[in-house]
Amino acid sequence: MDVIEAIKTRHSYRGEYLPDPVPREDLVTIMEAGLAAPSGCNMQTTSLVAVDDPEMLVKVSEIIGKKVGATAPAMICVLTQRLPSYHGRCFAVQDYSAAIENMLLAIVALGYESCWVEGYVTNPDGKGRQITRLLGVPDEYELVCCLPVGVAKARPIPPKKKDFYERAWFY
Amino acid sequence: MDVIEAIKTRHSYRGEYLPDPVPREDLVTIMEAGLAAPSGCNMQTTSLVAVDDPEMLVKVSEIIGKKVGATAPAMICVLTQRLPSYHGRCFAVQDYSAAIENMLLAIVALGYESCWVEGYVTNPDGKGRQITRLLGVPDEYELVCCLPVGVAKARPIPPKKKDFYERAWFY
Repeated sequence: MDVIEAIKTRHSYRGEYLPDPVPREDLVTIMEAGLAAPSGCNMQTTSLVAVDDPEMLVKVSEIIGKKVGATAPAMICVLTQRLPSYHGRCFAVQDYSAAIENMLLAIVALGYESCWVEGYVTNPDGKGRQITRLLGVPDEYELVCCLPVGVAKARPIPPKKKDFYERAWFY
Repeated sequence: MDVIEAIKTRHSYRGEYLPDPVPREDLVTIMEAGLAAPSGCNMQTTSLVAVDDPEMLVKVSEIIGKKVGATAPAMICVLTQRLPSYHGRCFAVQDYSAAIENMLLAIVALGYESCWVEGYVTNPDGKGRQITRLLGVPDEYELVCCLPVGVAKARPIPPKKKDFYERAWFY
């Protein structure tokens, strides 16, 4: 799929998914897209766990406790390490956000849908840590986002956005 | 350009640019790609100023004070408003990072090169504020990144990255 088309087609999908499994080959393509994103001083602070084990998916969804992605046949858990970079500053949020956007575009290009599920798993109620422990992720990684992946039952509903010239101008 | 190809082709370019101007039509396409990125609770915290006035470009580059992008015939200044979103939390960094990644992909797809210039303009030395004042940007916006845009004189040098399975795994 053309990159501009993918960018314009991508919208957050909060509905149900078909049960069709996502081939691991596709999950690798999606994760490769994520890991190809730039990172501050090439620190590569983002790591990924793809979950496609049906029982584990149920457990993870139960912890998240939301409908978004609950029926997805796969989920990519985005992990970060908040390492210092340029001038001792940390660009981990920028790093993982660029990786997530790449993955969302790859997901759409492969015919799947997804949604950037960050707030639900990073609230101070510890759900992120519950999920990483369940997945056996070492303590130095922090879960920052879950991306459901699967064939959608419906179409995503594009949000209403401000007009171009309310947010962009020339000098 | 195919989205996966764009993702794999995109690398930070720190070299010189050809003086050929970037048509405004292309700058609009790039900025539209940025504004199409998702934002937490659709808060649309990211705004953009494209600079293609040669005199202004010189002034902005002088403030940045680095070689990266100094010869680019256009520059997109990325602005944020750190507004509260889900549960009062602010996702502005995630929002602008996703927008930047979309723009970097659109830039590559259109045959240009760029580099995510954030650290240099967000250090506590006030360069970001100097640039926004020069551009007449209202005080409620904060400059977080400059993206040079232009035809490159050379090819970007891909950074050395860790192997896939050092950063990604399955469950």
